[in-house]
Amino acid sequence: MAKEVTSRAENFSLWYNNLVLKAGLAENSAVRGCMVIKPYGYSLWENMQSALDKMFKDTGHVNAYFPLFIPKSFLAKEAEHVEGFAKECAVVTHYRLRNTADGKSLEVDPEARLEEELIVRPTSETIIWNTYKNWIQSYRDLPLLCNQWANVVRWEMRTRLFLRTAEFLWQEGHTAHATRKEAVEEAVKMLGVYEDFARNWLAIPVITGVKTASERFAGAVDTYCIEAMMQDGKALQAGTSHFLGQNFARAFDVKFASKDGVLDYVWATSWGVSTRLIGALIMAHSDDNGLVLPPKVAPLQVVIIPIFKGEEELQQMRAHCETIKSSLQKSGISVKIDDRDNLRSGFKFAEYELQGVPVRLAIGPRDIKNGTVEVARRDTLTKEIVSQENIEQHVSSLLADIQSNMYNKALKFREEHTYTVDSYDEFKEKIENGGFFLAHWDGTAETEALIKEETKATVRCIPIGGDRETGKCMLTGKPSSQRVVFARNY
Amino acid sequence: MAKEVTSRAENFSLWYNNLVLKAGLAENSAVRGCMVIKPYGYSLWENMQSALDKMFKDTGHVNAYFPLFIPKSFLAKEAEHVEGFAKECAVVTHYRLRNTADGKSLEVDPEARLEEELIVRPTSETIIWNTYKNWIQSYRDLPLLCNQWANVVRWEMRTRLFLRTAEFLWQEGHTAHATRKEAVEEAVKMLGVYEDFARNWLAIPVITGVKTASERFAGAVDTYCIEAMMQDGKALQAGTSHFLGQNFARAFDVKFASKDGVLDYVWATSWGVSTRLIGALIMAHSDDNGLVLPPKVAPLQVVIIPIFKGEEELQQMRAHCETIKSSLQKSGISVKIDDRDNLRSGFKFAEYELQGVPVRLAIGPRDIKNGTVEVARRDTLTKEIVSQENIEQHVSSLLADIQSNMYNKALKFREEHTYTVDSYDEFKEKIENGGFFLAHWDGTAETEALIKEETKATVRCIPIGGDRETGKCMLTGKPSSQRVVFARNY
Repeated sequence: MAKEVTSRAENFSLWYNNLVLKAGLAENSAVRGCMVIKPYGYSLWENMQSALDKMFKDTGHVNAYFPLFIPKSFLAKEAEHVEGFAKECAVVTHYRLRNTADGKSLEVDPEARLEEELIVRPTSETIIWNTYKNWIQSYRDLPLLCNQWANVVRWEMRTRLFLRTAEFLWQEGHTAHATRKEAVEEAVKMLGVYEDFARNWLAIPVITGVKTASERFAGAVDTYCIEAMMQDGKALQAGTSHFLGQNFARAFDVKFASKDGVLDYVWATSWGVSTRLIGALIMAHSDDNGLVLPPKVAPLQVVIIPIFKGEEELQQMRAHCETIKSSLQKSGISVKIDDRDNLRSGFKFAEYELQGVPVRLAIGPRDIKNGTVEVARRDTLTKEIVSQENIEQHVSSLLADIQSNMYNKALKFREEHTYTVDSYDEFKEKIENGGFFLAHWDGTAETEALIKEETKATVRCIPIGGDRETGKCMLTGKPSSQRVVFARNY
Repeated sequence: MAKEVTSRAENFSLWYNNLVLKAGLAENSAVRGCMVIKPYGYSLWENMQSALDKMFKDTGHVNAYFPLFIPKSFLAKEAEHVEGFAKECAVVTHYRLRNTADGKSLEVDPEARLEEELIVRPTSETIIWNTYKNWIQSYRDLPLLCNQWANVVRWEMRTRLFLRTAEFLWQEGHTAHATRKEAVEEAVKMLGVYEDFARNWLAIPVITGVKTASERFAGAVDTYCIEAMMQDGKALQAGTSHFLGQNFARAFDVKFASKDGVLDYVWATSWGVSTRLIGALIMAHSDDNGLVLPPKVAPLQVVIIPIFKGEEELQQMRAHCETIKSSLQKSGISVKIDDRDNLRSGFKFAEYELQGVPVRLAIGPRDIKNGTVEVARRDTLTKEIVSQENIEQHVSSLLADIQSNMYNKALKFREEHTYTVDSYDEFKEKIENGGFFLAHWDGTAETEALIKEETKATVRCIPIGGDRETGKCMLTGKPSSQRVVFARNY
């Protein structure tokens, strides 16, 4: 099966699409731009959700659910927000269909026109802040720390599975605070949660930083982000956390009384990650044989494949495999046995490689005699023969090793493709091969736009806690207060 | 706070609405018919979801995600389905807004009209069977056992929080099988899962049965259901499981090759429960003081309230409460301490009663001296003084006792309000006070409609495994093969 996957070198974009389809993660649906997330892909999302959800709850957040629809007038209330979002969205104008005159099909009932059109939420700041208005009166009601797991719709013209789809699944946190300081701290704290999650669960190193004004979320004062490097050297924005100032509180008139009885607008943040992370996961780690999944989010961590000829040998194998399976399960490892008798082992090996199952155990008649197991790891594609004794300890530590090896490999890749440049000519030449570029920039939107026009690269972020070395903009020579990260991006 | 809740006897419907709002479960939003599920209500839903999701996975199902939108033409493909669903739904006709000429607000961009309108899913059979067409070729691809957790929209004219809202959250299982027998077995099995869940988690006894033709799901061959009795004697349909025959496979041309290479249409089921279950939970158990929640789904199982005067006493209490808290948490009990110093204990007691927290522990200075705790249980509103030693064992067994007591109480209530009637006059008289009526019916839609018109009662279901005693229809005197359940319903 893996043979049908285009190689990364040949065509990275086609390789990605091949993998998503052939590994059974997702597919395009009959509705333009909307995907079907298949069981294997959804299971990956569930694992990601469950880890994130716990992290949100451990930091004091609660889940809630707000309406799918947003009245059109709400979008117009926050001026910058509407500019950023209102253009491409799904608009509900009617609430009823009727049979056509010939009775053979359906048409929109013109009598059932909504007084005010409803927008399918592209993000929920407006409907949520309209709700918070009733929840917040005093400083005692703050902070308000809600998260929502939901589907959202943005009518994208060019879509790609997971990376950019009209409908996608995400979480959006929306918090309300009594002070600017507390809201900024919250936005930074949640960026930290995302960085932690990317590092420890997805095995993806990310740069944390602040967006420039031109890349900022519509309605935000500051947009913090995590940026990951894909294997083609492009950047992928993997999560954002916004300090919204008092913008939405002003737009929806949400005030609170302080301890001293003074009325002031509430301070806000919002933050989100989406099914786009699945795209990041694939492009950061996978290879020409298929997916390579970090054990901590893999839907299946271990597959056991008995090598047998005929029913009798299979029977003998089965009890043996079951014993290993339950010893692994006792250690909390997800495992299945594939004893299908209509497929060759080689075919199965290729299939699990394609699906990125971290560890494969193969057991043949000779292994039973010798008390051994063949253990193959997906990340390095290496094999070893180990004793069946303490197999669960061996596999447990192997899974931990794969997890950290994948992170280190991705980190090494990023370091090897991160360049400090001072010459614009050098930048223009090197950017063709991808990578992150630490360069000085004069801080103006004009320079940023010019560089984008000439190189297709943008400022991915102004790194947090990075080197504060001052310098001169590589293009204009004007002063710069610190190096920023330039890259082409998804 | 509880004083503001209308009593059940006074106005059951208002009592329900009061509770939902005052206990902080949900509220109406700015979008007509759509609710906001508040954190406390959503936490209840999360607990229900997690129990159900495990039950689905334990019975071999996997989760997936299908598009929110359904092309209009899909709805017309299954003739009965469209009759049942197409009328009231949210129709997306455009994909872009633009600024109005004065630049002050937004309007639909007439240039951005969709070629084919999209319907926000009222249920997903059509889009899913259009997808299954590509997933199923041979008997080896069957059974296909998918579930989806999603939001759906039905443009209801009269809405009530949780019970009937335009948008609601639910799960919808959609399975595909090689034989009729297997599909019927699946539909019945999932009905069993729902019954089990209602009984063991929600503490609600339900009658399992089959719907009459007039109450059947649009497109189903048979609709199985669970019906619960509310405290006003009305029935609430709490979950349905449909045997869809080959109807959707025919409509979307989904065929499979059998082992012998014969092509045939695939057999289908679908089944779902929704946030409506929260409404059932409230109306089955709660009282005039507020919610009464079964411990197994309660967002919070135990609250500890220190009774103190001044900061010094509070400090003394705090360590003590923390010790009890951690011993309870070690037993897997969810617990919080409420040591807010700006509220009287009496106020707190009423608040947790309103929220239906199953167990309340109150600890005063005298308790510390005596090594005792005051334990109050929400279901019976009784209190006892117990020793602090082995408090976690006491509370654990108390929670189990509350869970079973709530079930037994609801079962007793149902039994006391279930009547076997043979006279239509007696039926007409008694139905005014609510209850379930086991009566003979001639099996015709005409008689059913007439009874509904005259009494507002419908056949809730033809019970499965019930008494097979034959008899004569209470209205027409025509033969009946078994008693059915009549009731007024939500």
